[in-house]
Amino acid sequence: MSDLAEQNGLLDRALRRVTSLWRDMADRVTGSDEETIEDQMRACLAGRGGEVSARNRAAKLAQAYLGLDTEGRIDFLRVLAGFDSDPAAVRIAMERVADATDPEELATAKGRLRRALEPPRVRLLTQFTTIPDGMKFLVDLRAEMLRLMDGDKRLAVLENDLKGLLANWFDVGFLELKRIDWNSPAALLEKLVQYEAVHRIRTWRDLKNRLDSDRRCYAFFHPRMPDEPLIFVEVALVKGLAESVQRLLDEKAPVQDPARADTAIFYSINNCQRGLDGISFGNFLIKRVVGVLGGELPGLKAYATLSPIPGFSRWLQNRLAAEEGGKLLSEEEATALRAALPPPRDAEAAGGTAVVAAETPAETLKRILARRGWFREEPVARALEPVLTRLCAGYLLNEAASSNPKRARDPVAHFHLSNGARVERINWRGDVSEKGMKESAGLMVNYLYDPARIEDYHEEYVGEGKRPAATAIRKLARGWA
Amino acid sequence: MSDLAEQNGLLDRALRRVTSLWRDMADRVTGSDEETIEDQMRACLAGRGGEVSARNRAAKLAQAYLGLDTEGRIDFLRVLAGFDSDPAAVRIAMERVADATDPEELATAKGRLRRALEPPRVRLLTQFTTIPDGMKFLVDLRAEMLRLMDGDKRLAVLENDLKGLLANWFDVGFLELKRIDWNSPAALLEKLVQYEAVHRIRTWRDLKNRLDSDRRCYAFFHPRMPDEPLIFVEVALVKGLAESVQRLLDEKAPVQDPARADTAIFYSINNCQRGLDGISFGNFLIKRVVGVLGGELPGLKAYATLSPIPGFSRWLQNRLAAEEGGKLLSEEEATALRAALPPPRDAEAAGGTAVVAAETPAETLKRILARRGWFREEPVARALEPVLTRLCAGYLLNEAASSNPKRARDPVAHFHLSNGARVERINWRGDVSEKGMKESAGLMVNYLYDPARIEDYHEEYVGEGKRPAATAIRKLARGWA
Amino acid sequence: MSDLAEQNGLLDRALRRVTSLWRDMADRVTGSDEETIEDQMRACLAGRGGEVSARNRAAKLAQAYLGLDTEGRIDFLRVLAGFDSDPAAVRIAMERVADATDPEELATAKGRLRRALEPPRVRLLTQFTTIPDGMKFLVDLRAEMLRLMDGDKRLAVLENDLKGLLANWFDVGFLELKRIDWNSPAALLEKLVQYEAVHRIRTWRDLKNRLDSDRRCYAFFHPRMPDEPLIFVEVALVKGLAESVQRLLDEKAPVQDPARADTAIFYSINNCQRGLDGISFGNFLIKRVVGVLGGELPGLKAYATLSPIPGFSRWLQNRLAAEEGGKLLSEEEATALRAALPPPRDAEAAGGTAVVAAETPAETLKRILARRGWFREEPVARALEPVLTRLCAGYLLNEAASSNPKRARDPVAHFHLSNGARVERINWRGDVSEKGMKESAGLMVNYLYDPARIEDYHEEYVGEGKRPAATAIRKLARGWA
Amino acid sequence: MSDLAEQNGLLDRALRRVTSLWRDMADRVTGSDEETIEDQMRACLAGRGGEVSARNRAAKLAQAYLGLDTEGRIDFLRVLAGFDSDPAAVRIAMERVADATDPEELATAKGRLRRALEPPRVRLLTQFTTIPDGMKFLVDLRAEMLRLMDGDKRLAVLENDLKGLLANWFDVGFLELKRIDWNSPAALLEKLVQYEAVHRIRTWRDLKNRLDSDRRCYAFFHPRMPDEPLIFVEVALVKGLAESVQRLLDEKAPVQDPARADTAIFYSINNCQRGLDGISFGNFLIKRVVGVLGGELPGLKAYATLSPIPGFSRWLQNRLAAEEGGKLLSEEEATALRAALPPPRDAEAAGGTAVVAAETPAETLKRILARRGWFREEPVARALEPVLTRLCAGYLLNEAASSNPKRARDPVAHFHLSNGARVERINWRGDVSEKGMKESAGLMVNYLYDPARIEDYHEEYVGEGKRPAATAIRKLARGWA
Repeated sequence: MSDLAEQNGLLDRALRRVTSLWRDMADRVTGSDEETIEDQMRACLAGRGGEVSARNRAAKLAQAYLGLDTEGRIDFLRVLAGFDSDPAAVRIAMERVADATDPEELATAKGRLRRALEPPRVRLLTQFTTIPDGMKFLVDLRAEMLRLMDGDKRLAVLENDLKGLLANWFDVGFLELKRIDWNSPAALLEKLVQYEAVHRIRTWRDLKNRLDSDRRCYAFFHPRMPDEPLIFVEVALVKGLAESVQRLLDEKAPVQDPARADTAIFYSINNCQRGLDGISFGNFLIKRVVGVLGGELPGLKAYATLSPIPGFSRWLQNRLAAEEGGKLLSEEEATALRAALPPPRDAEAAGGTAVVAAETPAETLKRILARRGWFREEPVARALEPVLTRLCAGYLLNEAASSNPKRARDPVAHFHLSNGARVERINWRGDVSEKGMKESAGLMVNYLYDPARIEDYHEEYVGEGKRPAATAIRKLARGWA
Repeated sequence: MSDLAEQNGLLDRALRRVTSLWRDMADRVTGSDEETIEDQMRACLAGRGGEVSARNRAAKLAQAYLGLDTEGRIDFLRVLAGFDSDPAAVRIAMERVADATDPEELATAKGRLRRALEPPRVRLLTQFTTIPDGMKFLVDLRAEMLRLMDGDKRLAVLENDLKGLLANWFDVGFLELKRIDWNSPAALLEKLVQYEAVHRIRTWRDLKNRLDSDRRCYAFFHPRMPDEPLIFVEVALVKGLAESVQRLLDEKAPVQDPARADTAIFYSINNCQRGLDGISFGNFLIKRVVGVLGGELPGLKAYATLSPIPGFSRWLQNRLAAEEGGKLLSEEEATALRAALPPPRDAEAAGGTAVVAAETPAETLKRILARRGWFREEPVARALEPVLTRLCAGYLLNEAASSNPKRARDPVAHFHLSNGARVERINWRGDVSEKGMKESAGLMVNYLYDPARIEDYHEEYVGEGKRPAATAIRKLARGWA
Repeated sequence: MSDLAEQNGLLDRALRRVTSLWRDMADRVTGSDEETIEDQMRACLAGRGGEVSARNRAAKLAQAYLGLDTEGRIDFLRVLAGFDSDPAAVRIAMERVADATDPEELATAKGRLRRALEPPRVRLLTQFTTIPDGMKFLVDLRAEMLRLMDGDKRLAVLENDLKGLLANWFDVGFLELKRIDWNSPAALLEKLVQYEAVHRIRTWRDLKNRLDSDRRCYAFFHPRMPDEPLIFVEVALVKGLAESVQRLLDEKAPVQDPARADTAIFYSINNCQRGLDGISFGNFLIKRVVGVLGGELPGLKAYATLSPIPGFSRWLQNRLAAEEGGKLLSEEEATALRAALPPPRDAEAAGGTAVVAAETPAETLKRILARRGWFREEPVARALEPVLTRLCAGYLLNEAASSNPKRARDPVAHFHLSNGARVERINWRGDVSEKGMKESAGLMVNYLYDPARIEDYHEEYVGEGKRPAATAIRKLARGWA
Repeated sequence: MSDLAEQNGLLDRALRRVTSLWRDMADRVTGSDEETIEDQMRACLAGRGGEVSARNRAAKLAQAYLGLDTEGRIDFLRVLAGFDSDPAAVRIAMERVADATDPEELATAKGRLRRALEPPRVRLLTQFTTIPDGMKFLVDLRAEMLRLMDGDKRLAVLENDLKGLLANWFDVGFLELKRIDWNSPAALLEKLVQYEAVHRIRTWRDLKNRLDSDRRCYAFFHPRMPDEPLIFVEVALVKGLAESVQRLLDEKAPVQDPARADTAIFYSINNCQRGLDGISFGNFLIKRVVGVLGGELPGLKAYATLSPIPGFSRWLQNRLAAEEGGKLLSEEEATALRAALPPPRDAEAAGGTAVVAAETPAETLKRILARRGWFREEPVARALEPVLTRLCAGYLLNEAASSNPKRARDPVAHFHLSNGARVERINWRGDVSEKGMKESAGLMVNYLYDPARIEDYHEEYVGEGKRPAATAIRKLARGWA
């Protein structure tokens, strides 16, 4: 609901800004006022009046779209989706391909078939790139389609067409890497605040701390959307692998001398444009930033992330709830956990530890994790650390996505492994924010990017499904059921 | 021959500049040194080692290409052209389209067929966009293909693929309009000198004169080729329609106050990148510049060109040579022409004008035009003016391209008419340079861009083949055989 | 105390930023480590080792200064002040002036005397301009002198020298006017927040509201202190004269279309650099901004301020406390005020209004003004409005500064009147913030800048002490005791 | 004569550019049209109408000045020079200084005397800084004064005042170092062509060669004259000390890889603004550029010039003409020279070498140097090389300026020695251009800037008059008469 509002908000703000430009262009369109949306689209495609006229028509359509409510927008998109390729032309072109006898004839026939297959709606979508802020309009349009389509196959086809176009236009070769710091325009920094979803930016002071001299922030931009970051990464320049995001974000911590840092920690990567979902640049961003940092700071010896494990808690709860949950931890571990806990009041009242003793290990673990703020109870935390760390190592290295047995179940793990990183270290109490406790049981991971091995690791993971990890992690994950 | 050298020169200069970057990238490619070009292309497409690795492979291929001689380059391109779509996959995909029963199934099948038809060579060409100066490499590559293909259908198919990609990337929505003046980088101005082909820039002083305060120069740029103009237009701000390009380019003429100009004369438009042939921006450029100038200089009332008529002389010579040449001018006109000429010495010697009198009108005209510097002989020029002007009006308004009866025979006329301009005036002795005399018999045309009628004119010409013109021109062209 | 801390803070921040640069330079100074500050100054003046060496010495001195505590800094400055001109040289040069017989000899002698009079400490101060951030160092140094000198005549002389140098360097001809908006660097906007003292900026949202499309903000910068605004003005584009600063600063108020505004309201002007006290640019800033706005927004018809009256409350309290306070308001006014008040509880208890009736009018006014939040009590406010407005008009137009009988007592009034503005309107409840109530009894003034009359008004005020005002204001101020 | 024209040209071009701005400002000055220049100056000083009005008056004066012919300009300047300090005020202020008893009183009295001595003309000159392009106006004004004053003591005093002001404003701390290359604006490069006086730039190709990747060009700019270089230096990045300027400027020589250069050769330094004569930045420029180059190109090991010896030929001719010329070279040297020459035809005719034998050594040398193109006659050149090289070494190390016995007679030698360079090498046939042959007998010098010794050398030369040189040079110069 709030997402919907926000998304509408994005389009509507764009509306305000470009509204007068679009209105001026729309006013120059000659033609009956009673034209339906479909008529207008048809006229736009017919190209009457030349390219300038077509541009004005596109502006008129864009403005019309923004003026509609949700129902109206869905109708608009369904009409647009209806501009499909001509079946007869496709059939004839297919026949020519089938009948072609020599290679040149075949090549020509195939070229024609490709053109016959190109649906007019794709040309119409392309028209929007010619109007001011047209690229942002299309990106936001796809974001809206993703939200609205909800099983509507007609819209799905249109969304797929648009995704193809955007993938083409947002090819990484077109992107510009820019550094963002405290001298960047406030309007841009405001967008960072809005788009940062991994570790929310709470105040301008928090933001300033993330842009200080011992920090770096880089984003990709597209020349046709110059005010909009596409993806950005926040980096801390530190000594040794960082283990706690709370310490990294502590505004009162003294500023470090970046020239003395030996490690660059990528602690937050955020995609900014929902409309570019599935068109990934994260991979390139990290490698480009590694290159830039290495050039600027020769003291850097290691590049690593400090990452959440967003699927860990849910997976653990599911396993504990399921029958085989019992296999997750041994009776010895459970006993140690129970010993660390103060005796439950009820239990005491009821005559001692008998009730508790009847618990299965899984029940014990569930009971402990249900305690609010357990991570602050030192004895409990001490007992939990080896258990959760071990389970986490197993989760990261052994558990597979339901869709693909070679793919890590955790989405962040999958992202970094497919980029060529390896699992380097699991950090106990790495993120004790509410979100960190809820999603990752407070744990965080360092994924290490070793420039010399990125390609090998990438190949091993993508090709064979191998998940590279530090020896200690590998040991922990061994003997997994 | 000199073009060839020049074209090679362009690529080779690019080579020098990016050579070290590409070499560094190529050096990072792992793989046997004995790989053939085809192996390398295959590896590049296989995507082993991730996108960064693919980029390095693309750099290696580009560098390899530049290292080849003409023979080698043709081989390279033929190998590349061979990476075609898989016939079996295409057949299966076509069958699915044919067999689809419901609309959704059909949409999905068509999508698959489009993907199956996409030849791998297109993906390979796209890879080059990811390397430094890769876009310029591709543009120059197409320029080279156009030169080398020479009937080779395999290369023609590849060239066509590349044209499609470039048309997509150089969509006018991606272009940036920039003003060029005497404060622009010398490196850029040097390129203007190099690319100006309509009225050659002879010296830096000539160039400076064209960038003075009563002149404007605008160019389109692409964000991925930021140092390279794609097309540029030179504009003079004057009072009334300009009639002579020599007067416009006179370096000693006093500088006018641009605020007092009432007319903007577009006197030179140049495409800079041969590799973008057939992907037109000239249309948009003129209209954008009209918009910009109108905003800056409210005194401007008219926008017109001062254009050559490059096909006029050749057409005239052909007609005069052909039998029906006699119909081009009347006996009265011929008599007037003869009277303007001094009696030929031989004729005199041979006893008077008898010989001349036996000439057909066409022969008389041919004889006169063969006189070097006739335009400086006042009596001759006076007699020729009405004849040539009339013939030129007819040529512009009545003669059709051999390929298309609705299309003006003169290419410059076709360009401006299809942009929505009209033929406004023919200028006697408008360009008396050697080139102007040879191609256009010294004549120039003003094509008028009337913002209020551009679209109507465009439609009339493109739709119905009507050629809008000022009344005087229309009268001259009437009664044409 | 907080000022002191702040001022130290400013210097110390500068210290951190440039510290490494200065340290590097200082390290290159050759010379004994036991040199006293005085020795170092002497060496710096002697110019041994050329200009580069002198620069390093200046950096060393600046760094030494920043390393000192308050005592040490005072000593440093006193040593520096001691580098005075040579008495003997001055005496001889004076004699030559006295003895000069012809004009040329006199001119030469006077030139020599000027040079003889120039104290070496001035050359030493000038040296600091050559080091990185040296200009900011000198500006902050003067700020510190102003704070520390406290009657010390030696420091006063030095401060006066530095003021003369700064006045020279910060001549308005050297300043650059820049617009500041939401696209400005966050680091700069942060400084606005820090320097805004008239109407404090509470949050980034407040700031953003002040930089929205219906607002303007302009600042002067100096090329040698490019990151530091010297003075800035905040402008609202509105319809009609603004009457309430709370309404102007309301973040929830809808954004207006600037093209429809007819009035530019200058509602906050802030000097940013204490070290430039007495070197005024405010005058120029307003006139430059009037020029810029007039060019950009042809709809603007009036330029006015919405200004506090910072001396009004204090003056009123003083007058009410003094004997002649009784003349400030009439018995009728006092009666009306009393009637508007609810009967005091004690008075009621003591048997009615008798006690109150015994009050003088001055006592009544004092009693009312002492009521917290009186401006929200409608009957009280209604009764007070004519009284306070009348008193304010008199204060602005009739009361003189103790130092100068021709000068308005209120400093803000003096500033605008000497710039050529006139008193246009007094706004009841124009600023009901705590500060506004305390200093100005909630009143605000519009000073009108009429471009056609600025010079006349300026002359009248500066020359004859006339204070231009709207008729209504003049009437109110008439009949003043 | 051509200088005069050029100088006028400079001012007049400025006139055209700013004319409309100044005219608009001048038009806003209220006041009688019959005001004399003196009245206008008086009004400008009186400050009536505030600073804005004063600015308009300054613009009016500047415009008036530019409208005058040479006579009128001299009158204008003499009137301006007449605005002298008030003699009575100076007398009183001097008395107060004389009578001051305690230090504070003295300090105050001296401050007042300084103010009393400041002539109003200085304030008037300062006013011009507030108008657009005012700083350039003042710089060009001083250039014109230097040309026009010609012994006029009144103008000399004014020129001296202006020099003092300019020295203050153009303090090196205010200057910005910028690199100039082929991507710099053509308008700026055109100025390089205009200002280069050491080795004239003949064509744009020559210019481009000097800005290629193995060259560097740096200039100082002032923020108030942003389009005007003040001084620039051209640098070649080479291997080993360069010995021939013709080789450096050869456009056909292959471009070197700057990363492999070990030596930076400063081969041309040009002051651009005649109006800044005597206000030197060359010193700082070289040292700043040494710093910048060292940072960018770690391979650089040596920094040296390749400099002309502009006074050598004239000095030599004078010495040869004078009686003691005979001591310049020995009879042995003369004999060797004579042997290298072909026998003179006349001599031959007259019966052999008898006539020649009667020559003194000085006459022989004179005779040889009078031969056009002697440097191309190998035997002659071989014989001359040791003689001229030895004489040049002596000239550089032993000969003193007439004004100062500690100062090198050659102005370029003096410049580099006082900057801390040493005489490193004399290059035979280093500059065989017409100018080089005429002024320096074809010789050039390398002055070496050794960063580690710059300060010592500077001190030795400035303090004690020692001229540091390489051992070989010192040996050559020894035993000098």
